[in-house]
Amino acid sequence: MAPENASAPATGYVQPDVDVPSLTSVLDGEYAGIRDLVRTNLATYASVLEEADELGIDAFRDRVRDVVVKMAATGQTGMGFPAEYGGGGDVGASIAAFETLAFGDLSVLVKVGVQFGLFGGAILHLGTGRHHAAYLPDLITGELMGCFAMTETGHGSNVQALGTVARYDTASREFVITTPGDHARKDYIGNAARHAELAVVFAQLEVDGSSQGVHAFVVPIRVGGQTAPGVRIEDDGRKMGLNGVDNGRIWFDGVRVPREALLNRFADVSPEGVYESAIDNPNRRFFTMLGTLVQGRVSVAGAGISVAKVALSIATKYAVRRRQFEAAPDTEEQLLLDYGLHQRRLLPLIARTYALHFAQDEVRAQLHEVFSGIEDDAQARRRLESRAAGIKALGTWHATGVVQECREACGGGGYLAINRFAALKGDSDVFTTFEGDNHVLLQLVGKGLLTDHASEFEDLDQLGMVRYVTGLAVETVIERTSAHKLLERVRDLLPGGDEWDREAGLLDSEYQLAMVRFREEHMLAGLARRIKRGIDQKRDPGAVFSQVQDHVIAVARAHVERLVTEAFVDKVRGLPEGGEKTALALLCDLFALSTIEADRAWFMEHGRLTVQRSKAISREVNDLCRKVRPLAVDLVDAWGIPAAMLRAPDLVG
Amino acid sequence: MAPENASAPATGYVQPDVDVPSLTSVLDGEYAGIRDLVRTNLATYASVLEEADELGIDAFRDRVRDVVVKMAATGQTGMGFPAEYGGGGDVGASIAAFETLAFGDLSVLVKVGVQFGLFGGAILHLGTGRHHAAYLPDLITGELMGCFAMTETGHGSNVQALGTVARYDTASREFVITTPGDHARKDYIGNAARHAELAVVFAQLEVDGSSQGVHAFVVPIRVGGQTAPGVRIEDDGRKMGLNGVDNGRIWFDGVRVPREALLNRFADVSPEGVYESAIDNPNRRFFTMLGTLVQGRVSVAGAGISVAKVALSIATKYAVRRRQFEAAPDTEEQLLLDYGLHQRRLLPLIARTYALHFAQDEVRAQLHEVFSGIEDDAQARRRLESRAAGIKALGTWHATGVVQECREACGGGGYLAINRFAALKGDSDVFTTFEGDNHVLLQLVGKGLLTDHASEFEDLDQLGMVRYVTGLAVETVIERTSAHKLLERVRDLLPGGDEWDREAGLLDSEYQLAMVRFREEHMLAGLARRIKRGIDQKRDPGAVFSQVQDHVIAVARAHVERLVTEAFVDKVRGLPEGGEKTALALLCDLFALSTIEADRAWFMEHGRLTVQRSKAISREVNDLCRKVRPLAVDLVDAWGIPAAMLRAPDLVG
Repeated sequence: MAPENASAPATGYVQPDVDVPSLTSVLDGEYAGIRDLVRTNLATYASVLEEADELGIDAFRDRVRDVVVKMAATGQTGMGFPAEYGGGGDVGASIAAFETLAFGDLSVLVKVGVQFGLFGGAILHLGTGRHHAAYLPDLITGELMGCFAMTETGHGSNVQALGTVARYDTASREFVITTPGDHARKDYIGNAARHAELAVVFAQLEVDGSSQGVHAFVVPIRVGGQTAPGVRIEDDGRKMGLNGVDNGRIWFDGVRVPREALLNRFADVSPEGVYESAIDNPNRRFFTMLGTLVQGRVSVAGAGISVAKVALSIATKYAVRRRQFEAAPDTEEQLLLDYGLHQRRLLPLIARTYALHFAQDEVRAQLHEVFSGIEDDAQARRRLESRAAGIKALGTWHATGVVQECREACGGGGYLAINRFAALKGDSDVFTTFEGDNHVLLQLVGKGLLTDHASEFEDLDQLGMVRYVTGLAVETVIERTSAHKLLERVRDLLPGGDEWDREAGLLDSEYQLAMVRFREEHMLAGLARRIKRGIDQKRDPGAVFSQVQDHVIAVARAHVERLVTEAFVDKVRGLPEGGEKTALALLCDLFALSTIEADRAWFMEHGRLTVQRSKAISREVNDLCRKVRPLAVDLVDAWGIPAAMLRAPDLVG
Repeated sequence: MAPENASAPATGYVQPDVDVPSLTSVLDGEYAGIRDLVRTNLATYASVLEEADELGIDAFRDRVRDVVVKMAATGQTGMGFPAEYGGGGDVGASIAAFETLAFGDLSVLVKVGVQFGLFGGAILHLGTGRHHAAYLPDLITGELMGCFAMTETGHGSNVQALGTVARYDTASREFVITTPGDHARKDYIGNAARHAELAVVFAQLEVDGSSQGVHAFVVPIRVGGQTAPGVRIEDDGRKMGLNGVDNGRIWFDGVRVPREALLNRFADVSPEGVYESAIDNPNRRFFTMLGTLVQGRVSVAGAGISVAKVALSIATKYAVRRRQFEAAPDTEEQLLLDYGLHQRRLLPLIARTYALHFAQDEVRAQLHEVFSGIEDDAQARRRLESRAAGIKALGTWHATGVVQECREACGGGGYLAINRFAALKGDSDVFTTFEGDNHVLLQLVGKGLLTDHASEFEDLDQLGMVRYVTGLAVETVIERTSAHKLLERVRDLLPGGDEWDREAGLLDSEYQLAMVRFREEHMLAGLARRIKRGIDQKRDPGAVFSQVQDHVIAVARAHVERLVTEAFVDKVRGLPEGGEKTALALLCDLFALSTIEADRAWFMEHGRLTVQRSKAISREVNDLCRKVRPLAVDLVDAWGIPAAMLRAPDLVG
């Protein structure tokens, strides 16, 4: 338990100087303004962190609502809505604001997400002019609260199988909303238990006796503070965290809403009861509607990354204050962060957090382009949906893992509620589940890769998709990812020719990229071949697809990690020379090599890593940790987390 | 997202029939009686699970105290104390009772641990007749509550560096207890904030101006419900979990206690102020005193394993009820546990839980032997301490990981407080920290391996230990673990001679054992050689030891996993033929192969796994998962968790 030797780890190595404000500018990028507004708001309402512990559940829910409304008044939460209704008209800025808000109390964050992202987003993206005019101005201020009633007790991930029914009654020109049983009650719905007046309800539309699939309707659930007739609401009660958000269950017993309550951007029912949609295929129509969810996933991904930043900031600052055990008699005890083991625990996580940050920048930019109409075609939307799903899964799992590691690294102090880990852990736990279960999301990513995000995919049901995948798409994938072609491309980039994977320097970013690209393409080709083999053997396509489920997840993960690595490398390359660039290049190496190290078994199994080189990578990761050690505090400070948000008086003072 | 094919995975394979009560008998073993008593008590006080959510913090703390006292009256919590004072006189049974209690509310568990394990254990093991007679009868009933005041804000793991001082005042024949500063205040002390009348205080003993190291004193901290003069107590406040335990901080301002307050089993101060101890070496004396902590570590290890059982029981039962996604149009949706991915997520965790259970049986038996005087020499104690540290680390990390995986596998329902995950997660989080930080414990294990648990180790301080390790011990280790000798031993056991690692069947338990034994010994030899090389190069021993810190952790983990594998294999071999044996043999294979799979990079790096065989192991793990799938519910039912403890109405009904 003696300390790492603090001497320079390599001859000639000069430790970079990091200018923290400059690095913050690199991280904040074009959204520095809105991020600073949110930082100011977080500091203004910092007491909400204490109130989460002190107030009773109802009082805290009301307090969170009040904070959300006050923040809304600063323009912070309405950035994603059109200016004509009082919004900021900047989708990218709305995501950046949400990411920054995640430095603070997460009930406030999730309340904002429910009100402006889910409820407001559904009105904006699924509704038309009449809905916009009627609801947007008041929901942007928070005066009109609403909820997003999609999930049911019986169905979360499989939205197409929801049980709630909306039958069109031609005589009265109304929809009749009905919950056919407890299985179909809406559940876990934020804002439902206490504050929402309106709900956007997802239900199976029935017109003239035939089902048209899931559509969304605006349904009043409270009138003048009282539950609306025919509506039953139950409180979901206390949760592991996020107790400032009033989640609840909703049942509808023949609730009638006018024909205009249908959010009719993609489909409508005429007064006479004729169903019409510009999108003929029901599956494509469904996935188009669901596509509006993508914003929520990008938002949660960014929030997860911010949660990791808060946890790592506390643990890093603690590790440069806390001493434990002497290296020699009669000497001072050593700082935790001077232990090689402690560096190994925290520093690769800091590197991965930076990597995810820059990848998130790219997904946010794509989202902004698609939703601002800068680049909005079917292919771009599919790509965005895949990337959003992927970074949501990796970003939120990262948050869960980082919070746990950092809590343990802060010992018993990390367990007291007065320090932030209790809240961080309980509140962020559900990030891996909401806005799409992470495993389900990675399967979407994997299927997208197999179909090359072909838009035909949307037209297909589960079985059709399997048939499609096992047909043309698989042949295409096998062709595109042939080892020969792949290696040809790599060979041109790296010294060593066919021996690139043995000759290139470990710190050559082209080598690191080649490794993660090779992994993705090799996995994808292998997956395609497995599927093709099964089909060629005339086995049931569903069973074939099921047997490769873990490969689908693995290739999806490899794909997202490749994108993340590329984003980090690109970012570093684009920076001007200086201490920040040098420091980020170290971090980028640490991220890339620790990523390869974590999956070194795969690389060895597939002939891309010799035993010697595998061990050399582990040594290099240790060496990089020693180089990053003196920069650690600057690196976490550059995230610009308001001091009051590092609420851990026992740990960081 | 289609289901696994449910057909038999291998020709000729016959699925075993498991008789659940028989399997429960295998698991409960000789302690079935006390375990059933605890099960009954858990059911009687099941309402405490709801009360944890419903009562305010003070009311819940009092309720937990009451439940503990009522359980104590049944004899459940006093098994570890001598019969003459009202105890059960059976150390092993006391651990078994504690393990079983961990199926229920964990505040009750930890309160029991504080009162009877830590406080009562210190009186019993560090005190002598006068302390036993004075305190044991009342503390066993719970009438006299006490706390164990060791940890300070500034020192947790490094107990030898505690700041609290106990100066002997010869004139008054008293000890004067003083807290020299906030750094030295006692912190996180269970029972301190509300219920304890006495504290066992660990302090630096000063006699006649010279320091004799850390000793323990009985100090009244409350008299008639009021804080004692000179004592200051502060509430640690709300925690991430365990809010039924009243943790607090204590300062002592010249508090005087009589000479007899020193727990004087290992050392005493004469009335005239002469320090005397039968153990000359101060380090050995210190570690002998600390050795009494071992019981707490074994208890927490067992509790962690029980927490994993509760989480896995809920997730498994949910996975055979919950359906999501159809495999083909117009078919019913599939059960979660019929998905290959879901099997991969849960079933290896069930296997590892069984493995840890049987390893815990062995450590508990060793503890029983040592503390019952059946086998109690220095070597046996050192081995026990090492094993207790190792299983505590692996068992509690297992609990943390399992609770997280199971919560995610239960989706949004897992997030509601009415289902048990919120409590399980928050309450068990600190298990990885208390009774010894897991990383620090694994370092103890690693050092024990390097010194072969030589008792001389105790005589040494940190630097002395390094010198010792780098001297004789390392040579011995290098000699003992030479690859040649190791392989010779393996060769005799397995077919294939020198090619055993390529020829033996994957399901041959001798092969599995050879693999984990090889890993441990190879890692240990490598570690010893690294240390020797550093010392031969005349580098600073502290720095050398620090640079290999991650290797120390790795070898410790490999050591414990080897012991766990051996325990499981031995258990299965000893069972009579039948369904239970067949089922456990499947689980044992699943555990052993998934353990090797998880570290397959290491095995490939060290020439013990070819690429082909590594892939074959992954296929075999999948195949074993399919075989275990139909047994899953029986396997979790056999743990005998009272139905009311699976408090998850939304998940398991």
